[in-house]
Amino acid sequence: MNLSSCYLFAGLSQSQLEYISGIATSMPVNKSSWLFHRGAPAECLYTVEKGAVELLIEVQPGIEIPINMIRPYNGCVGASCLVEPYRYSLSARCVEDGTLSVIRRADLTPLIEQHPHLGCILMTNLARHLLERLNETRQEVQLRFMSLVRSATF
Amino acid sequence: MNLSSCYLFAGLSQSQLEYISGIATSMPVNKSSWLFHRGAPAECLYTVEKGAVELLIEVQPGIEIPINMIRPYNGCVGASCLVEPYRYSLSARCVEDGTLSVIRRADLTPLIEQHPHLGCILMTNLARHLLERLNETRQEVQLRFMSLVRSATF
Repeated sequence: MNLSSCYLFAGLSQSQLEYISGIATSMPVNKSSWLFHRGAPAECLYTVEKGAVELLIEVQPGIEIPINMIRPYNGCVGASCLVEPYRYSLSARCVEDGTLSVIRRADLTPLIEQHPHLGCILMTNLARHLLERLNETRQEVQLRFMSLVRSATF
Repeated sequence: MNLSSCYLFAGLSQSQLEYISGIATSMPVNKSSWLFHRGAPAECLYTVEKGAVELLIEVQPGIEIPINMIRPYNGCVGASCLVEPYRYSLSARCVEDGTLSVIRRADLTPLIEQHPHLGCILMTNLARHLLERLNETRQEVQLRFMSLVRSATF
C-alpha cells in the first residue's frame, strides 16, 4: 500500500504512515458497482490500489455530472468521512474491477485523537485540497457569470 | 474579543483561546478600504470586532461577484493564510468603519506547531467550513447545469 502518494497522507512520517496502514483493510471491487451515493452516512475513506473510481453528482436518473476520476496514487475517495456532518458530498462508482484500501472512520477518529500531530497534518492536507477544489469550482461559476455578462452586454 | 464565536475557533478550550488572543492585535479600518485582493500573499487572518467586511470576486474593473458578508461573530476573513499556497482566494473590502482583530500567520504557525491539539481542532474546523462552501458552490453549478438540460430538452 502506498499511502504517502495520497494527498491526505503527504508529509506524514514513516511511523505515522504505519499507524494508518495498521487500520486499513483491502477490499476487491467490481466494475460498475457503487461505493456510495451522495448524502449517505460517510463511514469509510478509500484509496485505490488497483482500478479506478469515478466521483460524480447524480442530477436525476440517467443524468450525471462527472467530477473526478481517482486512480492508484491519485488521491482518495470519501474524505467527507473526516468532517461533520459525516455525509458523502459526491457519489462514487467503480469503473473497473480493482482493489481498494478501506479506512473506517471508527478506527481513524481515535487514531487522530491519540496522535494530534498526525491529525493536524491530515486535516491541513484536507483543507488545502478542499480550498483547491473550491477555487476551481468558483472559477467555473465565474466563467459562466462572465459569459452571461458578455451576452447581456453585446 | 469573542474568538469562540468564529467557526475556526469553535471547540477550543479556554486556555487554547487565550493562546490565540495573545497573538491577535486590534486594527481600525475605514469604510471602502480594501483588506486584500485575490491572489495576494495571505499573511493575516482577520475577525471582525465592529463593522463589516465583504468577500467578493473581482471579475473585471467594475464587475464583482459578491460571495459573503462577514460581521462580528460571523466567521473570519482570510483563512487562506492557514493553507498553502498561502494566497487569498477572494478579495475583501470593508463596507463600514470598524475594528478588526488581526492574527499574523507568522505568529499562528509556530503556535499550531507547539500545540498540535489546537492545530488539529482549527484545521478540522477549516476543512468543515470549506466542505460546506464547496457543496454550496457545487449546488450552484448543478442548478445551472439542470437549467441547461431543461432548456435543451424542452
